[in-house]
Amino acid sequence: MVTIQDVMEQIEKGISLDSSTVDGLKYGNKEDQVTGIVVSFMASLDVIRKAVDLNANLLITHEGLFYQHHSNHLLEKNMSLIEQKKTIIEETNLAIYRNHDAIHRSDPDGITQGLIESLDWQQYVYENAPSHSILHIPNKTPVQIASYLKEKLGIENIRFVGNPYIKCEKIAVLVGYRGNGVNTIPLLDKVDLVIYGEGPEWETPEFVWDAIQQGASKGLIQLGHAESEDPGMKRLANQLQHTFPDVPVTFIPTASRFYII
Amino acid sequence: MVTIQDVMEQIEKGISLDSSTVDGLKYGNKEDQVTGIVVSFMASLDVIRKAVDLNANLLITHEGLFYQHHSNHLLEKNMSLIEQKKTIIEETNLAIYRNHDAIHRSDPDGITQGLIESLDWQQYVYENAPSHSILHIPNKTPVQIASYLKEKLGIENIRFVGNPYIKCEKIAVLVGYRGNGVNTIPLLDKVDLVIYGEGPEWETPEFVWDAIQQGASKGLIQLGHAESEDPGMKRLANQLQHTFPDVPVTFIPTASRFYII
Repeated sequence: MVTIQDVMEQIEKGISLDSSTVDGLKYGNKEDQVTGIVVSFMASLDVIRKAVDLNANLLITHEGLFYQHHSNHLLEKNMSLIEQKKTIIEETNLAIYRNHDAIHRSDPDGITQGLIESLDWQQYVYENAPSHSILHIPNKTPVQIASYLKEKLGIENIRFVGNPYIKCEKIAVLVGYRGNGVNTIPLLDKVDLVIYGEGPEWETPEFVWDAIQQGASKGLIQLGHAESEDPGMKRLANQLQHTFPDVPVTFIPTASRFYII
Repeated sequence: MVTIQDVMEQIEKGISLDSSTVDGLKYGNKEDQVTGIVVSFMASLDVIRKAVDLNANLLITHEGLFYQHHSNHLLEKNMSLIEQKKTIIEETNLAIYRNHDAIHRSDPDGITQGLIESLDWQQYVYENAPSHSILHIPNKTPVQIASYLKEKLGIENIRFVGNPYIKCEKIAVLVGYRGNGVNTIPLLDKVDLVIYGEGPEWETPEFVWDAIQQGASKGLIQLGHAESEDPGMKRLANQLQHTFPDVPVTFIPTASRFYII
């Protein structure tokens, strides 16, 4: 018999979470026996419904339930659609556990590792740092790398800044919202290309825009936040299935929300 | 004779800027006579070179020179490309004045007004608030609105979330990085569609994604940060030309930095 507590302990093993953590059991009782686990980047309503259809009673999600990194009671109280989502969740009896900080604080970062493994790039890792990994890859252009990323990750559109035909051998990979200039600009002193999830539009893109005019061969590829973190949650689902072989574990990928018009 | 000080006083007239403002003269001497003004969203190197070619000696820019909203000396000190950009700027003798807070604190917000005027939507304004404007427009679908935005603003790609065929009559317009959930989610209780510059990917887009599944007709259009604020800087250029008719004032638009691969 596996309880929710057992799954939480497995995920948090060896990780110290402080009192400001966003992680934890948001719905459900930790003493309950787990009949099935669903893992997904977001606890969106389609994911919640699929979890119920699969007879899972534990949903493990990376980001917040109500569209904010830290829960915002003022926002949640006044919005009828958020109230309605809460009622839908309560009616499902689904336990929901958020695993954001623990997976990022694994050594190496479990989300970054998931992305690197999804790309079959483990053999190219030169350095793993808490906020990024540096890889030394066989010489490719950003266009070739973007095509490879699209194929391996199933992404329809990738946003790129820079000269698409430079030679890239040293790249930095940053997941989620780590694409800000404080992270990427020092890295761009050492690498040809940064690949990140999301970041402010006039930080890294503007640095690369100027760098090209300064004669430096630099580029950035923006995957999208969910696109960069989905593989890490898939990796977690595989690990949990291995640890709890008698509990069905299902990973539900997060489709892109954006149409390009 | 018009001095840099005269131009700054004109821009800051009636606005109170506190000590934490990012605005101010970053290069140059306020006593100098103005030979020509260039106005642009970003002080990127191509804009700096065009300003010199135009014999302008004052560049007015909305965002930061070194890829951060607040200057970050640690980042600036250690990056050779940033050091090089500083040397290039010093060699031009161009005065650079950042006008971010003053134009946003105008009543109504000068950047938001510039966007609304560029869209010929002044007659539809229902409410101007510091962070947004609410407009009541003739019934259109998000696809029709996106096509109109692309044509009027010269944007190649627009990102959209939601059902592209809902009826939109009430919309909220938010420029720059105001597309976060704290701003947009309460507005989406009142309007059909939010149009914003930039915002975190799993806040507003996820709210709209869930809302559609809850049967609510909601949508979002993401213009891009520069795309949403460029018209406001163009409006400023026109105002300065009117106030200082003897000084040549040139607006330089900011091209999109992103390729879609």
